[in-house]
Amino acid sequence: GGFAMEDQVPFGMIGKMKAQPGKRAELIAILAAGTGTMPGCRVYLIAEDAKDTDAIWITEVWDDAASHKASLELPTVREAIAKGRPLIAGFEISVETKPVSSHLRHG
Amino acid sequence: GGFAMEDQVPFGMIGKMKAQPGKRAELIAILAAGTGTMPGCRVYLIAEDAKDTDAIWITEVWDDAASHKASLELPTVREAIAKGRPLIAGFEISVETKPVSSHLRHG
Repeated sequence: GGFAMEDQVPFGMIGKMKAQPGKRAELIAILAAGTGTMPGCRVYLIAEDAKDTDAIWITEVWDDAASHKASLELPTVREAIAKGRPLIAGFEISVETKPVSSHLRHG
Repeated sequence: GGFAMEDQVPFGMIGKMKAQPGKRAELIAILAAGTGTMPGCRVYLIAEDAKDTDAIWITEVWDDAASHKASLELPTVREAIAKGRPLIAGFEISVETKPVSSHLRHG
């Protein structure tokens, strides 16, 4: 138990994405595989909505806005976007945030 | 750089809370202080909405639903709820999630 880090972080995103019907798991696998090693990324959390069966929530924390923007040019991310796009029905929510407090437990 | 953990996690929450006008910073300070040491909590991330000046986003990941439920009885959490409640205008979003992929960078 216990928390190994408490930090201040400057740029975040929270989004609710809808997959094409029945394609959520496939889309999540593509997103998870393509976002594992992004410079400047502190948190990239993918979660299924418990009730909305095609919905995916993504919570991101980055060192700064530039790191987030640069990630969109990474080959692994571009590949994930290309593979994932046909499986995305749309975005219900996509907001920029300023993360101000994070408790992350390690392990 | 680099990611020190990639893990599967079973219970999550994402919420959008509205503070009373002008009370966001005060409410965040109360929430951050009261949620630092919660058993079973893997992620507790507080972020300001970049455009909605009274809005706060909270992303939570827990070992399981029982850990989340038990946290509501912790003295520090009960105190935060009691102190924070008068500063909360309402909840625009409060959804349960199943976290399926998390990249957390440490340090």
